[in-house]
Amino acid sequence: MEGKVRPLNVLGSSLNQYVLVKVKWNREYRGLLDGYDQHLNLVIKNAEEVVENKSRGTFPIMVIRGDVVVYISPSEAI
Amino acid sequence: MEGKVRPLNVLGSSLNQYVLVKVKWNREYRGLLDGYDQHLNLVIKNAEEVVENKSRGTFPIMVIRGDVVVYISPSEAI
Amino acid sequence: MEGKVRPLNVLGSSLNQYVLVKVKWNREYRGLLDGYDQHLNLVIKNAEEVVENKSRGTFPIMVIRGDVVVYISPSEAI
Amino acid sequence: MEGKVRPLNVLGSSLNQYVLVKVKWNREYRGLLDGYDQHLNLVIKNAEEVVENKSRGTFPIMVIRGDVVVYISPSEAI
Amino acid sequence: MEGKVRPLNVLGSSLNQYVLVKVKWNREYRGLLDGYDQHLNLVIKNAEEVVENKSRGTFPIMVIRGDVVVYISPSEAI
Amino acid sequence: MEGKVRPLNVLGSSLNQYVLVKVKWNREYRGLLDGYDQHLNLVIKNAEEVVENKSRGTFPIMVIRGDVVVYISPSEAI
Amino acid sequence: MEGKVRPLNVLGSSLNQYVLVKVKWNREYRGLLDGYDQHLNLVIKNAEEVVENKSRGTFPIMVIRGDVVVYISPSEAI
Repeated sequence: MEGKVRPLNVLGSSLNQYVLVKVKWNREYRGLLDGYDQHLNLVIKNAEEVVENKSRGTFPIMVIRGDVVVYISPSEAI
Repeated sequence: MEGKVRPLNVLGSSLNQYVLVKVKWNREYRGLLDGYDQHLNLVIKNAEEVVENKSRGTFPIMVIRGDVVVYISPSEAI
Repeated sequence: MEGKVRPLNVLGSSLNQYVLVKVKWNREYRGLLDGYDQHLNLVIKNAEEVVENKSRGTFPIMVIRGDVVVYISPSEAI
Repeated sequence: MEGKVRPLNVLGSSLNQYVLVKVKWNREYRGLLDGYDQHLNLVIKNAEEVVENKSRGTFPIMVIRGDVVVYISPSEAI
Repeated sequence: MEGKVRPLNVLGSSLNQYVLVKVKWNREYRGLLDGYDQHLNLVIKNAEEVVENKSRGTFPIMVIRGDVVVYISPSEAI
Repeated sequence: MEGKVRPLNVLGSSLNQYVLVKVKWNREYRGLLDGYDQHLNLVIKNAEEVVENKSRGTFPIMVIRGDVVVYISPSEAI
Repeated sequence: MEGKVRPLNVLGSSLNQYVLVKVKWNREYRGLLDGYDQHLNLVIKNAEEVVENKSRGTFPIMVIRGDVVVYISPSEAI
């Protein structure tokens, strides 16, 4: 008995969309969701790093380890 | 020998209802429960983020990683 | 070779009884044990939240993630 | 190739004896070992809670989650 | 149902390229990605260690445990 | 392809010898290694507890949970 | 699809060589790599313990639990 909308499916529907990824230690990353796996490891393109509300630069591509993720929010409702 | 009411079933009965999700670091999220999986990863719609009792904005949709959850409380008894 | 009284069986014998659930960060929850699973995820009804010895309100129903639990104590000996 | 005395067997030999259970955050519990499982979840009867060397009361029965345990010491050599 | 670009494949495409590896505790390592496994354990050659923005020296070869990784960023888009 | 000397075998060769067990939070235990399992749970006899370099007493027997161990050092080379 | 050089193979090629093992809490160990397993548990001989850049003595043999390791660096390129 699983929930109506599976969390991984929300990620599948958000591919190539902008997402906000909040990780531990008050850090966040904003960019295009390019991929993910079942551990919630994420691939983000054009990822802007924001630490305590200050931009720290942009990365062409970034693999974020799922274990540090707090939440992922696509910028538009699905 | 499992408990009378299984925790995941409480989530199943709370789909499309408002829930309060308390996570680590004194953060909480309030919104409609749209889905979940066996890791307690959650999909929340219209999620309001509250940090130390102050609202920090609303997200159309949010995937919260189960590993950061402290508790989930549906707003109404089931 | 398992111990005489299995921990999950203590929970099974405590269903519909009041329990004290101590979690990390000096928080505790008191209410009726309504269910559990093998991860020690718990379902508590009429759960009063107590943080550093102050009551913070009551929740009709609450799913506590097992991973944050320190101990569970039924209010009466079994 | 396992060690001569298996840790779980020490617990098996300590059933119905007084044990000291040291957990994280400088807390300890003293009482009769009534059961355990392979995760080191423990059932303790007449458990006295001691926090930073001060007694905080006694619980008729307590299930301690194995994941918070530092060590378990039976009060008598086996 | 897995994401379009799998995180491990991004690492596979980055072999022999310079990568930035951010780990916990505000540390980072910059060097050539020489290998990895499914736990995100990494092999980095000519790894420069940077702690709180100060260089701490260079290591000919380094195995970083996946469990401490926050993100990995190849220096060029793929 | 495993390493020449397996870590568990070092423990097997150290049975009935004095070992130093360093655990998290600057604590250590010194005593006779009486057993272990594959999780690095340890059985130590005549265990002296040392916290921040001060002796805190001796325990006839102690089961230390592997998850809190930093390292184990037999007092003599093998 | 695994990375060109597997992390465990780097350890295999470093047997009997001097390695630097950085663990959490700003501690490190330097000595001969004598063995390892798939959890990155390590056997180090003649291990010098260095805490915040100060030597704290040498151990004839030491088993370091993989879970506390940040990185392992053989002293020479392979």
